[in-house]
Amino acid sequence: MNIKVGKAAIEEASKKLSNWGRWGKDDHSGTLNIVTPQMIVEAAKLIKKGKSFAMGIPLDRTGPQTGLFGGRFNPIHQMLATGTDAIAEQQDWNKIRYADDTLMLCVQGATHWDALGHIFYEDKCYNGHDAKLIDSRGLSVLGIEHSKDKMVGRGVLLDIARHRKVKWLKDGEGISNDELDACAKAQGVTIKKGDFVIVRTGQMERCLEEGEWGGYAGGDAPGVKFENCYWCHEKEIAAICSDTWGVEVRPNETTEANQPWHWVVIPAMGLCMGEIFYVKELAEDCDKDKVYEFFFSGPPLIITGGTGSPINPQAIK
Amino acid sequence: MNIKVGKAAIEEASKKLSNWGRWGKDDHSGTLNIVTPQMIVEAAKLIKKGKSFAMGIPLDRTGPQTGLFGGRFNPIHQMLATGTDAIAEQQDWNKIRYADDTLMLCVQGATHWDALGHIFYEDKCYNGHDAKLIDSRGLSVLGIEHSKDKMVGRGVLLDIARHRKVKWLKDGEGISNDELDACAKAQGVTIKKGDFVIVRTGQMERCLEEGEWGGYAGGDAPGVKFENCYWCHEKEIAAICSDTWGVEVRPNETTEANQPWHWVVIPAMGLCMGEIFYVKELAEDCDKDKVYEFFFSGPPLIITGGTGSPINPQAIK
Amino acid sequence: MNIKVGKAAIEEASKKLSNWGRWGKDDHSGTLNIVTPQMIVEAAKLIKKGKSFAMGIPLDRTGPQTGLFGGRFNPIHQMLATGTDAIAEQQDWNKIRYADDTLMLCVQGATHWDALGHIFYEDKCYNGHDAKLIDSRGLSVLGIEHSKDKMVGRGVLLDIARHRKVKWLKDGEGISNDELDACAKAQGVTIKKGDFVIVRTGQMERCLEEGEWGGYAGGDAPGVKFENCYWCHEKEIAAICSDTWGVEVRPNETTEANQPWHWVVIPAMGLCMGEIFYVKELAEDCDKDKVYEFFFSGPPLIITGGTGSPINPQAIK
Amino acid sequence: MNIKVGKAAIEEASKKLSNWGRWGKDDHSGTLNIVTPQMIVEAAKLIKKGKSFAMGIPLDRTGPQTGLFGGRFNPIHQMLATGTDAIAEQQDWNKIRYADDTLMLCVQGATHWDALGHIFYEDKCYNGHDAKLIDSRGLSVLGIEHSKDKMVGRGVLLDIARHRKVKWLKDGEGISNDELDACAKAQGVTIKKGDFVIVRTGQMERCLEEGEWGGYAGGDAPGVKFENCYWCHEKEIAAICSDTWGVEVRPNETTEANQPWHWVVIPAMGLCMGEIFYVKELAEDCDKDKVYEFFFSGPPLIITGGTGSPINPQAIK
Repeated sequence: MNIKVGKAAIEEASKKLSNWGRWGKDDHSGTLNIVTPQMIVEAAKLIKKGKSFAMGIPLDRTGPQTGLFGGRFNPIHQMLATGTDAIAEQQDWNKIRYADDTLMLCVQGATHWDALGHIFYEDKCYNGHDAKLIDSRGLSVLGIEHSKDKMVGRGVLLDIARHRKVKWLKDGEGISNDELDACAKAQGVTIKKGDFVIVRTGQMERCLEEGEWGGYAGGDAPGVKFENCYWCHEKEIAAICSDTWGVEVRPNETTEANQPWHWVVIPAMGLCMGEIFYVKELAEDCDKDKVYEFFFSGPPLIITGGTGSPINPQAIK
Repeated sequence: MNIKVGKAAIEEASKKLSNWGRWGKDDHSGTLNIVTPQMIVEAAKLIKKGKSFAMGIPLDRTGPQTGLFGGRFNPIHQMLATGTDAIAEQQDWNKIRYADDTLMLCVQGATHWDALGHIFYEDKCYNGHDAKLIDSRGLSVLGIEHSKDKMVGRGVLLDIARHRKVKWLKDGEGISNDELDACAKAQGVTIKKGDFVIVRTGQMERCLEEGEWGGYAGGDAPGVKFENCYWCHEKEIAAICSDTWGVEVRPNETTEANQPWHWVVIPAMGLCMGEIFYVKELAEDCDKDKVYEFFFSGPPLIITGGTGSPINPQAIK
Repeated sequence: MNIKVGKAAIEEASKKLSNWGRWGKDDHSGTLNIVTPQMIVEAAKLIKKGKSFAMGIPLDRTGPQTGLFGGRFNPIHQMLATGTDAIAEQQDWNKIRYADDTLMLCVQGATHWDALGHIFYEDKCYNGHDAKLIDSRGLSVLGIEHSKDKMVGRGVLLDIARHRKVKWLKDGEGISNDELDACAKAQGVTIKKGDFVIVRTGQMERCLEEGEWGGYAGGDAPGVKFENCYWCHEKEIAAICSDTWGVEVRPNETTEANQPWHWVVIPAMGLCMGEIFYVKELAEDCDKDKVYEFFFSGPPLIITGGTGSPINPQAIK
Repeated sequence: MNIKVGKAAIEEASKKLSNWGRWGKDDHSGTLNIVTPQMIVEAAKLIKKGKSFAMGIPLDRTGPQTGLFGGRFNPIHQMLATGTDAIAEQQDWNKIRYADDTLMLCVQGATHWDALGHIFYEDKCYNGHDAKLIDSRGLSVLGIEHSKDKMVGRGVLLDIARHRKVKWLKDGEGISNDELDACAKAQGVTIKKGDFVIVRTGQMERCLEEGEWGGYAGGDAPGVKFENCYWCHEKEIAAICSDTWGVEVRPNETTEANQPWHWVVIPAMGLCMGEIFYVKELAEDCDKDKVYEFFFSGPPLIITGGTGSPINPQAIK
């Protein structure tokens, strides 16, 4: 495709690709509705080795947040009771010795789903909901809780870095629709309706290897081009995920909008999106056995009114 | 069995049922090691209807914590950016309109896994680790992160309430090993090695129906008897889960220890345990189609050094 | 005064009592500007016994928040390092043994100041600032930080409960302007320009004595009548404080507005307001020595963009 | 003095300077007990200009915590209700328009007092309390709440940087007892029993001028030498405060202990200590009027079981 990315292109795509009303005016789950029970049954047949790959990153102080974006911080893990308390006999009044803890985290600070109320187009959310319904008390519409039993189906890895024969794509390198198709073809896998598609750029592995997150969480990155919204729509996939902070290429392809692809895929399309996926071992395994499809299970926490959820999604082969 | 529950019985069971060293001295995952790839492949064949049941409860202020236990509180969800900010044009400098949020929660405050470092016996954790290695900085051993790709396999529901033909068991009612076996037999399901067994008492549904959590999180409850530790060991199950706060019956079967079953199953056996599971719809479905086995997928968040993880486990039939 | 409290009365008072522009269009501190250096020097002369009274309540789980108001919760205090860690030799790599901790709290959850950006009238804040400047990132105008060195001067206690010869006023009992004047007269104290006036109803002491906060934080309460806004304006006091959650009487004197006095005193007048003050011992001392004036020092934390600050204000006699 | 700093010197000083039992075996406030009512009355006479200097630093993301020390982080300020919610009419069901917020912070992360339970010597705290009494539930002894009405008295600034005629001392530069005395003499001020002494190194101002906190919170710093514990004891001051993270010079004067001065002044002496004080404007004013004494009021928040308190202490001249 040849799109001049900008506000006009966003408006055009928002109209052409709109899924508003497609699954009823009360829908809060968007493209996850594409997944049918039969697709899940078929996906289960992909479990042939009995091996599960955890695609979450650790939730701790070593996370990717470096202050770039809107006040996000790395997870804060604190204890309510410890083994040291126990052996000091400080718990024995209660006749049990135990450890207990709390976690404070940014919902979208590490591996996570975006809920459909995460991004607005003008004053509207997906399916025509008013953005004002998302206030300091949380998302009274389009929260992640609506997808609590819907994050399961067929997963496909598109390993763009290996397809290009590089360790990782560089920041700023865009991935075209044609390349996604070529990569799938080369990998011998077909994108099907209802798929959870995971795009590997290698950016996260570069950060881990270099021991520096740098601009990972909010700065430049490799990723899909704006035109990808058309590809997702045409393929009718359930979700798109990546090993980057925001799936799409950065710097933005326009100065008129920040993250222009986001402007379309969430508010207009209701596309489920997963970010900051750790896919190193999954990709190595796929490269080894040349099987790029698997059973996917990535249940979100049921955060009432959440803009998303921290997750540890599983690819099961 | 006929056990006089108390410290002597705990000591005896701890010796007889110990799994220390069974999976190597560096093991941090306990009974989850029982699950083989082949078991996962077999479990996948249980996905026949393509229907997923979410077994998490909502993470919000309506949660079960009422101050009974050790400073636990219900989840606190707060926004970092809102739709009301967006429509007030307070975000337009950034050329994107969005919502963002944080969550602070007790790791074991709602539906969760216990990690093996959660409970100590005297000054030791599972596998002989020193309890002092669990201090204010978290669990340097036996944290939940070690199980990040291991929470998958065959799930079985034992619906004790329906087996007894009651809506729910009353607080204080114990479930014997014989009753578990009889329930399985009546339901036409066999407990197999490596299973994730879920015991339904109905207690949570009573609380939800009555609109009052009351003593749910720390008070009295129906649950398995102390003798259940022998049952879990003999059956070689991977995990036991329940719709209650602590799986075992309360009041405790002894005054010598608080939660005596916990004293054995975690430190001695390394048994994976899931609590506060919501099973209403799963149980109704099992009652309808008489199929009490399913594919189980309950990935924990990778909380480094966590005593467990909040989860939304999935039973997929 | 004889006011029919309602939206019309609010509008009328807002116009008559407005301090917009009085201390410049960039003012963020309102009536605190009334205090002159000379007043502080005079106030210092009230320190005659060398005795300080702490007027904060403890910040812990026993606080007054019971879920009545907008998601407020009691303080959560957690440790980062403990004595039990220390004696278990878990800190000795660092060659120091110590304890460390965190606190999470609602800014207005216990004894606190309100900042002037806390309440809006229609779409405006005090001094004409647009309410939209107070978004999820905090108060970009009228935050408590502007008053960091201004919370000092002459304090006066008006002990209404003792004046009425009761242990405490009942919920719903209003305090008129005439009664404030009569109380001052009876106590032998004059309200002066620039004073920090503290009104004692005894409600907090009732809660403490009964061991139940009940509706303290958001429910019914004794307090000043709506007409009090005229009294504060006429007396030109710097601040008004009380031992209740919201200073003014509840139930509200009208159904047209919630906390009608608040609608006027903050947005129109820029009146500094202190709430949930603990005054038991101060009041007993004043009753004993019949001296109801003192040096007042209640520095706020410098919470950038805060709607107020938790405090432990001091009355020094 | 000529001390070879190390464990032997710590032990010797701990014995010589011990205040254990001096104010009763139930004392939790240490040297604050030195302040008499008469001292407070005398201090009040130092209020001659009616000018208050706020010595707190802002509590926000720009704070000094950079991850150097034990998991400390900068304050996290979040909204519970906003002006943007208000103007979007999302609050009008409640008939009031308002903003509300929360704060999560490290108790010792910005300007703060240390409580006496903050540092241990071997397995003991100040006054002989067992360190195990300070566990994950907080400080059951020696918490900051015990000093709620005791942080008031005479303040004295010792402006070492100006005394040396430098903008700021360099990291690693120690301040001897002789220099403190010489500085006081040059400034024309006498250190008296019961004083709150504030030592200015200029380090904070360097960080602010350079726009980089660098190693401020946990790294190298100018500060008092170990021998200062003898000076504080001899002068019988109530408290010592500084514009640095830890008052004492860093790198440590020994490799045998981290912060050796801390090992003595808190556990043995029960010395009240204030850190991260902002004194730029106060110091400029003192330099101008040559008056280095003032009324000091630094009330702590009443954090039950807190290792200290965030504060905004006031120097009032």
